[in-house]
Amino acid sequence: MSRLEEKTIKTEKIFSGKVISLQVEEVELPNGNISKREIIKHPGAVAILALTDENRIVMVEQYRKALERTIIEIPAGKLELNEDPEACAKRELEEETGYGCKEMEWLISFYTSPGFADEIVHLYIARGLEKKENALAPDEDEFVNLMELTLEEAEHYLKEQKIYDAKTAYAVQYLQLQKALNQ
Amino acid sequence: MSRLEEKTIKTEKIFSGKVISLQVEEVELPNGNISKREIIKHPGAVAILALTDENRIVMVEQYRKALERTIIEIPAGKLELNEDPEACAKRELEEETGYGCKEMEWLISFYTSPGFADEIVHLYIARGLEKKENALAPDEDEFVNLMELTLEEAEHYLKEQKIYDAKTAYAVQYLQLQKALNQ
Repeated sequence: MSRLEEKTIKTEKIFSGKVISLQVEEVELPNGNISKREIIKHPGAVAILALTDENRIVMVEQYRKALERTIIEIPAGKLELNEDPEACAKRELEEETGYGCKEMEWLISFYTSPGFADEIVHLYIARGLEKKENALAPDEDEFVNLMELTLEEAEHYLKEQKIYDAKTAYAVQYLQLQKALNQ
Repeated sequence: MSRLEEKTIKTEKIFSGKVISLQVEEVELPNGNISKREIIKHPGAVAILALTDENRIVMVEQYRKALERTIIEIPAGKLELNEDPEACAKRELEEETGYGCKEMEWLISFYTSPGFADEIVHLYIARGLEKKENALAPDEDEFVNLMELTLEEAEHYLKEQKIYDAKTAYAVQYLQLQKALNQ
């Protein structure tokens, strides 16, 4: 046991929903004291930085109930039970945008809110996009506006806080870095 | 009402804890159908990319109960009620690292998990660090190992997935971008 580890004494399951579940864990701290941790369990997610042949970034405008507003994000979605992340990325890209892709490459995975949630996002970059004729349909409770932005347009939306979430901010900065490295 | 908006019909409060609260909202979708949204309310947080005079990045190794492991992160912490984010960033930097700073500049704010949570992180960059003699103490349930990493070391830990969260990945990439732009 590392010096920082917190040992679980008791787990109280509070809620189990269709997306997340919540439990409160009583833990023993490294100094022997007792504390509580509120923890959200999430199935994990994928996000896709999809670039058209004209180097436009495929984005979706979507209402986010947690924020009570629409924001512009790269396509993303939750992993289904035992689903391979790359397969999930291809599925979500097709469902949300109608695009298939010839190339899909893993970029990075990160936890979004390690202080209270185990959600991980696996970020992929997709190239060689082609519209599918009979594309998979979005989830029945999912409504999005499709957009295809230049990097400059994405930077503008980021400044205006219409692009406003961690995975999309990371993806835009990734493209800024690639551009700077190639100049 | 925009075409994408989801109107709340009913809110069921499930849990209210010391960090997060959970509610389930029954919503009317843009097509008139009814669905449910599971929503976590969070007070918001700050994170600090703090650079020493030798350009080392101040990081903290911390056990994250949600992940059941330690990860290496930039210093961060929750906003207190009505707390100004910049004041919070200075407080958290001092509590977690013992450092005060001469310069604190806002870089970006982003939502971490817009699909289910309203948590926002305000990211600052701090320079002109100086150790405080009687620094504020960390929260009583907070145990961290202080580290000061070169960019190359941070890139190494990122590859090894010891740095593994969105805000820290964003901060490391920010430094990579600044380096590329200045070359």
